[in-house]
Amino acid sequence: MGENGESEIIEHHDDEEMEKIRTPRNHSHSFLESVTSSDKDGYSSTQSSHRLLAYSDALISIIATVMILPVAHTKFQDNEELKQSIQALLTTKVAVYLMTFLIVTVAWAAHIRLFQVIERIDDTLALLNLACMMLITFLPYTFSLMATFPNNILGILLFCACVMVIGLIQALIVLYGFGRPFLLNDQIQMSENQAYYKRRILEVIMRVPIMCLFASIFSVIYIPLSYIILAIVIFLPYISQCLKWIRSKAIGGQVEDSPDSVPFYTYHPSEPLSKERVEAFSDGVYAIVATLLILDICEDNVPDPSVVKKEFDDNLIIALQEYGPEYLAYFGSFATVGLLWFVHHSLFLHVTKATRLMGLFNTFSLAFVGGLPLAYQLTHEFPRGSRNELEAVQISCVIIFFAGLFQLAMWVTALFTERETLHPYVRYGGREHAFMLAKLSLYPCVALGAFVFTCVLSRFSTSIFHMMEIGVPFAFLILRLVVRVALAIIRWLFCPVRNDLDSVPVEDEDLQLPINDIVT
Amino acid sequence: MGENGESEIIEHHDDEEMEKIRTPRNHSHSFLESVTSSDKDGYSSTQSSHRLLAYSDALISIIATVMILPVAHTKFQDNEELKQSIQALLTTKVAVYLMTFLIVTVAWAAHIRLFQVIERIDDTLALLNLACMMLITFLPYTFSLMATFPNNILGILLFCACVMVIGLIQALIVLYGFGRPFLLNDQIQMSENQAYYKRRILEVIMRVPIMCLFASIFSVIYIPLSYIILAIVIFLPYISQCLKWIRSKAIGGQVEDSPDSVPFYTYHPSEPLSKERVEAFSDGVYAIVATLLILDICEDNVPDPSVVKKEFDDNLIIALQEYGPEYLAYFGSFATVGLLWFVHHSLFLHVTKATRLMGLFNTFSLAFVGGLPLAYQLTHEFPRGSRNELEAVQISCVIIFFAGLFQLAMWVTALFTERETLHPYVRYGGREHAFMLAKLSLYPCVALGAFVFTCVLSRFSTSIFHMMEIGVPFAFLILRLVVRVALAIIRWLFCPVRNDLDSVPVEDEDLQLPINDIVT
Repeated sequence: MGENGESEIIEHHDDEEMEKIRTPRNHSHSFLESVTSSDKDGYSSTQSSHRLLAYSDALISIIATVMILPVAHTKFQDNEELKQSIQALLTTKVAVYLMTFLIVTVAWAAHIRLFQVIERIDDTLALLNLACMMLITFLPYTFSLMATFPNNILGILLFCACVMVIGLIQALIVLYGFGRPFLLNDQIQMSENQAYYKRRILEVIMRVPIMCLFASIFSVIYIPLSYIILAIVIFLPYISQCLKWIRSKAIGGQVEDSPDSVPFYTYHPSEPLSKERVEAFSDGVYAIVATLLILDICEDNVPDPSVVKKEFDDNLIIALQEYGPEYLAYFGSFATVGLLWFVHHSLFLHVTKATRLMGLFNTFSLAFVGGLPLAYQLTHEFPRGSRNELEAVQISCVIIFFAGLFQLAMWVTALFTERETLHPYVRYGGREHAFMLAKLSLYPCVALGAFVFTCVLSRFSTSIFHMMEIGVPFAFLILRLVVRVALAIIRWLFCPVRNDLDSVPVEDEDLQLPINDIVT
Repeated sequence: MGENGESEIIEHHDDEEMEKIRTPRNHSHSFLESVTSSDKDGYSSTQSSHRLLAYSDALISIIATVMILPVAHTKFQDNEELKQSIQALLTTKVAVYLMTFLIVTVAWAAHIRLFQVIERIDDTLALLNLACMMLITFLPYTFSLMATFPNNILGILLFCACVMVIGLIQALIVLYGFGRPFLLNDQIQMSENQAYYKRRILEVIMRVPIMCLFASIFSVIYIPLSYIILAIVIFLPYISQCLKWIRSKAIGGQVEDSPDSVPFYTYHPSEPLSKERVEAFSDGVYAIVATLLILDICEDNVPDPSVVKKEFDDNLIIALQEYGPEYLAYFGSFATVGLLWFVHHSLFLHVTKATRLMGLFNTFSLAFVGGLPLAYQLTHEFPRGSRNELEAVQISCVIIFFAGLFQLAMWVTALFTERETLHPYVRYGGREHAFMLAKLSLYPCVALGAFVFTCVLSRFSTSIFHMMEIGVPFAFLILRLVVRVALAIIRWLFCPVRNDLDSVPVEDEDLQLPINDIVT
């Protein structure tokens, strides 16, 4: 603890020290600032923004994920086909969940970019940020309204009003930040043309609110048009990113920006995202998803004392046996989410820089992870051996497969620019490369295998699924051993070629140091 | 972002560098370790435990808080007195919430202590920790069973089984950690008698599981006795801490430990807690509580299209007006929780070290914060002007009052040992001292004022409460100004005495630096 506390203090002091050094460079402001009392006071209360961002990440990740609950709470009629109920579900609730997840991650990405420009905060900025968060957490409700009343303009108007107010607050934050330059990012603080940056950032921030203004105006005239505008707002950044990345890979050698431009607000697929915040957001989503089912279990699976007395002859154990599959669903869901977090954790341990494209794949992966509790709940809602049960198990497999696949995609994306984004260990030819590949591909492979097995042996679908649940944690425990054996076999088969690739000289140092120490 | 990413890398490398330096000091192990392949391999996969702990904090804070949901979802009958329904509620659900909150924070404190000893992790430890988390998240369910079937031993047995397995996993983690000393805390790593620490830590860890073993044995014979044992398990650490602290303050000069003993596993009130983890846990609780109500709003407050068509003549706005008070409850609850977070954030910005006693007050404060959504939901459940409404508003005031008061208590506790625990700014006589006092006492004062007003003007209780909600955010915005004016008046009244106290010379430096810079 002492270490943490101290580094915090040091950081705190460092910040102030650096501000003292930095502020004078701005010759036009520095003297005035140090003299006028109000500015100096604002300056003395300057804080590191770290915890504010962590709290915002927690709020946003919760909001992004809880909208799966209305989906999960929909009761399925067992007598009709699962396909029908799934279709009824898809039209509204799943759409609300996905829309919320995407818009909230768009808002989150904007929040990251904003606080990459404004690196230090004070009390006023903290309060403005809280107001912004309050409106973001209200967005899912506007989506619920839109999905339930697609022909009523109220949902659209509410949504647009929220987005416009959020935009105004963000613009206010930018103006406030540029009014007190010691709050800004160092690069902008030292730059000559702050006014240009201010205008450029404000332009990007106000783009979405202005589109929402148009959407709200058009909603009075022709509602479908405003939905199209909203869809553009939500999906355009994602689509344009994908297209740009594909183009840059196809043509090769992307156009460089002018040297003066900031790396923020460019919408470049290789624009850096704060790695720390991607981790915090992902942690929040994984934590919420892992615990969503215990909520239902605590509320629904405690039998009524009178029922136990009447129907089960006061024998609680027999009464609870009815809920057996639900406990299994809880532990299975917790284990799967926990292990997917573990894979994510292992990956980000070796990632040195997160780009926007990696963030995009991360979002897709998290959106599937958010669907997991629903999938697990489905697996125990239907009687054994029914066709519905088979389909529920298969949907679970598909969700796990895609959640794992997008994690793998993150790593593959990182490998394309491995010098900037990856730690040497996991680069191609690095010591941990094969192990990381095995870790990332374990879940997609297992899920795919389970899916194929359930197609062939449809009678045993649940058993196969439960075997998978129980087997995977142990697979992770012995994975390192398996990979080493596999590598040894490959080396033995194809002669010692890999030694040349092992160019990282860390291992030698490991061996030398202790010996030196003993000698001296 | 660049900064974060880089500092992360540097930290990563630092960790490894430091391990290289540290390991050799352990002369008995170092040479062997560097030679045997299996150990070296385990060592190469050593990771900083930071993110694992953040994820655990997120999980534990969610579990601690979600148990308020069953309380909030209890429907109150409006025709009977509130007191009756509150009593029926108190007996089971509130008890379950408080028990869960306390036991989970006990488990969390144990988790902190464990990972203060084991500072670095590898894959095996990460997986063991996930297993531990899975069992901790299952504890609330065992409490629900106990509360619903107090005379059935199944709940007790399940709880004891979970705690015992958690204890075994933690013991396994300790054994694994002492088997690979490079994972341990530096102090223990460098110490001569590791075996003593190992035994001592295992003793402390196994104390609770052994008590649970006795509780489960006694449950077969005489159930109340096992409840008493469980209560001792939960409350003893808290009570003994309070008593020790009071005794140390009353008698003065607490007994110092022998110089060789570690500062962990002492149960001392001044034992350090990881400040970072207290922040992360609090953030999680505040974030969950702030968003709990939006969940209910999204599920319950979207009217059925057919109902809107029939009863409200297809006018959605009129249909939604029925829910007006619930939106107000949401925004009010979000604002209150957000501002309480803001106060907590401001306080911990100036705290350099968190002690166990501060952690205790923090837990109490958070337990009251967790009750806020319930209180706010109560305020709109009853018709205007009824006696129930008055009581609901007063309960809300009491909850806010205690949540704020325990935050203030944290600061007062820190002031007793201000040299170690506080930043110079907020110590007695520091530049921000008065401002911090104002920030921390704003909510208790306002809540107390609102409570008194509702007693006097009981007819306007809701209006007073809403005035408070709207007024407090603005009060925070102008608080600095108010404090400065108040200080100026006090100074003017009692002559310039305070200047002597202002011994921190930071302000002078601020003035000098830029001028120097311009001169040179």
